[in-house]
Parts: sequence; structure tokens; C-alpha cells
Amino acid sequence: MTTGVQVRRRMGVEERRQQLIGVALELFSRRSPDEVSIDEIASAAGISRPLVYHYFPGKLSLYEAALKRAADDLATRFVEPQEGPLGARLLRVMRRYFDFVDEHGPGFSALMRGGPAVGSSATNALVDGVRQAAYLQILVHLDINRPPARLELVIRSWISLAESTALIWLDGRRIPRAQLEAQLVHDFAALTAVSAAYDDEMATLLRRMLKDEPAEGPFTDLVGRLIALAS
Amino acid sequence: MTTGVQVRRRMGVEERRQQLIGVALELFSRRSPDEVSIDEIASAAGISRPLVYHYFPGKLSLYEAALKRAADDLATRFVEPQEGPLGARLLRVMRRYFDFVDEHGPGFSALMRGGPAVGSSATNALVDGVRQAAYLQILVHLDINRPPARLELVIRSWISLAESTALIWLDGRRIPRAQLEAQLVHDFAALTAVSAAYDDEMATLLRRMLKDEPAEGPFTDLVGRLIALAS
Repeated sequence: MTTGVQVRRRMGVEERRQQLIGVALELFSRRSPDEVSIDEIASAAGISRPLVYHYFPGKLSLYEAALKRAADDLATRFVEPQEGPLGARLLRVMRRYFDFVDEHGPGFSALMRGGPAVGSSATNALVDGVRQAAYLQILVHLDINRPPARLELVIRSWISLAESTALIWLDGRRIPRAQLEAQLVHDFAALTAVSAAYDDEMATLLRRMLKDEPAEGPFTDLVGRLIALAS
Repeated sequence: MTTGVQVRRRMGVEERRQQLIGVALELFSRRSPDEVSIDEIASAAGISRPLVYHYFPGKLSLYEAALKRAADDLATRFVEPQEGPLGARLLRVMRRYFDFVDEHGPGFSALMRGGPAVGSSATNALVDGVRQAAYLQILVHLDINRPPARLELVIRSWISLAESTALIWLDGRRIPRAQLEAQLVHDFAALTAVSAAYDDEMATLLRRMLKDEPAEGPFTDLVGRLIALAS
């Protein structure tokens, strides 16, 4: 007589590790990692608690592996073909960014707000890696290799603006996410324009950024509305 | 015969604690807290290492006490009389904010970047407390008790923009700080304007914010330059 358990194919080490990472990530996406126990992860994976420790020496190492997978996933979403107007490209990336934030809500909040389970040098390095991937993608789309200090500042500080906007959205979801995706595209243009208002190099860059924007694109729409607002 | 040490008046417990906090804060303002040992703090305070542990059970508790003093100091700098144009008020606060960042460079970076010595729930609570103090001060100056969700988002995300701008500035100081102080004031207006371009309530608020701005103020100057840039 064979039971269901015995029939089930034995997983290899790497396959089992990947399964546990997936299970953990799924649990972390619904509740803060601090609130998820190894027992729950074991139970959701259908294995014993000691067996989890066989694959991951502790919860932190499983957390870091899950975060690594999520970070790789997020970095992939930043990649966008270098075709068409910049505003539309950035808007598509913002949609995929909010998809990610939506899918990983509690885990994303816990990580970015710095709960007790986070703040290790490995998790900080992963978060910094994602920020750096976002920064480099933007440079690629702007077609710039050696950014002036002011442009680097605009891009990096806008990335932190995008993070905080997502975090604030998760806390109650009081504004429709589609509006915030568009707002972040507009914010990028606005912060660049502020820098350009006081620096010639940035002004040249802004003009180049805007020259191929279509009338129906997010940048042109914003400029039209701002002019209407000012008058 | 009396030596200098014997002559020196004995400090009370609270006085000694305050002295150690001051010494630690001074060391943390020149090097990352991770790199400062209890031995150094003891030596700089002119007492033995065991005596430091008599006043603070460990480095983390001394770090938290130092951070508490720095947080209280920073929150004090946000306070500004409710007089005169808003842009000029915010610019004065930005100057004091950069004074603080300048004075506490390495400690500020280590804290905000989340090094190993940080990330405890107590330190996170202190950082959140400072952000909340900044948020409430801005509401006071805008004369608003119950902010709509979009205004809360603009203010809170701008606060994170100010943090990242300061952090990027500290990393190489490649842009004069006075320019960044003004830029953050402009950024606040720009982010508010982006939100106002798509929301009537925010548009009303923006008009109220700008109505008393003088021609030579930072907001008017920005609008003039942006119009010149667009044409």
C-alpha cells in the first residue's frame, strides 16, 4: 500500500530551497515577516520545522533569500525597451513598480520601514542594489553615461520619493494607485525642472528629455495643466 | 599633595550621563558610530571603560541616548515663527536642517543608511518621531488641521526627499549646500503644484500658499524661471 506522501517525488536540495523561498515570500506578502514563524513556513511547505532548518540555518537566512528573489524580481521590472517617448516609458515602469508593491505589501513595508527582522548588512545591500539598478536604468533611458552631480541628485532623490510614495499608499490606500503612478512620472519632470531652473546643464538636459514628448504624453499634459493653474 | 584628578569635582549620575552623551555625540559626528568604541568614549570622557558601563549597560543604550538628544535638537530646529511668507520660513528651516546635517554628518549618514549599530525599534521610533515633528510643523504653517490624503502624501514624501537630498549631499558635498536648501523649498512647491494640477482641493491650497509670496521670495523666483525655461 502506498500513501500520498510516499508517492510524492522527493525534491532535490536546491528545488526544496526554492520552494521554501517561494512559500516564505508568499507569507511575507500577506503579513509582516516579523509575524511569520518558521512553524508556519514549514506547515505551508508541508515539511517539518527541523527540515526547514536543514535548508536554512535560521529565519534571517530564509528572509534574506526571499528578499534576494524579490529584489531580483523588482529589478527586472525596471527594464523597459528604449523606444518611444520617455514619459510613457517611465509610466509603464511605475505601473510594474506598483504591481510589485501591491503584491508584496506587508513585506515591502516591513523592509522599508526597518522592522526588527531587517536592517542586517545583507538586507541593506539588497535594497541598495535595487536602488542602484533603478538609477542605472534611468541613466540608460536618458542616454547619459557620466551624469553631472545635479542629475544624479535628482534621480536618486526621486527614487526615494517613489519609495515613500509607495509606502504611504500602502498605509490605507487612500489615493488610487494609477494616479500615483502618473504623479511620480510628473514628479520626476518637476524635480528635473526645478534643478534646470537654476542650472544651464540641467536645462539643456530637460529640453532634450522633453523634445520628443507627444501632445498626449504625461509630460506635455502636466505642463499644460501647470500653465492653466498659474494663469 | 593634591593631583589634578583628585581636585576635580565628582559629577552626579545624571550629570555624568549627560557628559557621556555629549562626548559620544561629538565622536559620532566625526566618524560612523560603528567605528567608535566604548574605549574611545571612555578615554574622551576621561573615565574608565567599566565606569561607562556603570552609566550605560551597553553601546546601544548610549547610542540611543545620543540619538535621542540629537533628535530633540533637530526637532527644535523645525520650529519657526508663523510670520512672513511661507517660502522664506521654509528656507530658514532648511538652513537649520543643513546646519544639523553638517554638524552630525557621519552619524546622520550611518543612522539613515541603516548600519549595523542601528535599526533597533527604539532608534526607528526616534527617526519616525523627528519625521512626524517635521510633518506637524508644516501643517501648522499651512494652517491646516485635517489634511486631505494628497497633501499628507506631498508633505511626507517631500520629507523623505529632504532626507535623501541631505544624504547625497554628505556623500562628497559636490553641490553647495545653500543651493540645495533653496532647491528643497522649490521642490516642495513643485510637488504641491504637480498634485494641484490634477486635484481641485490641492489647487485651492496651492493658491492660498502662494498668495502672500513676495516678488523676491523663493516661490515667485522659481515660477518666473520655469516660465522662462518653458518659452
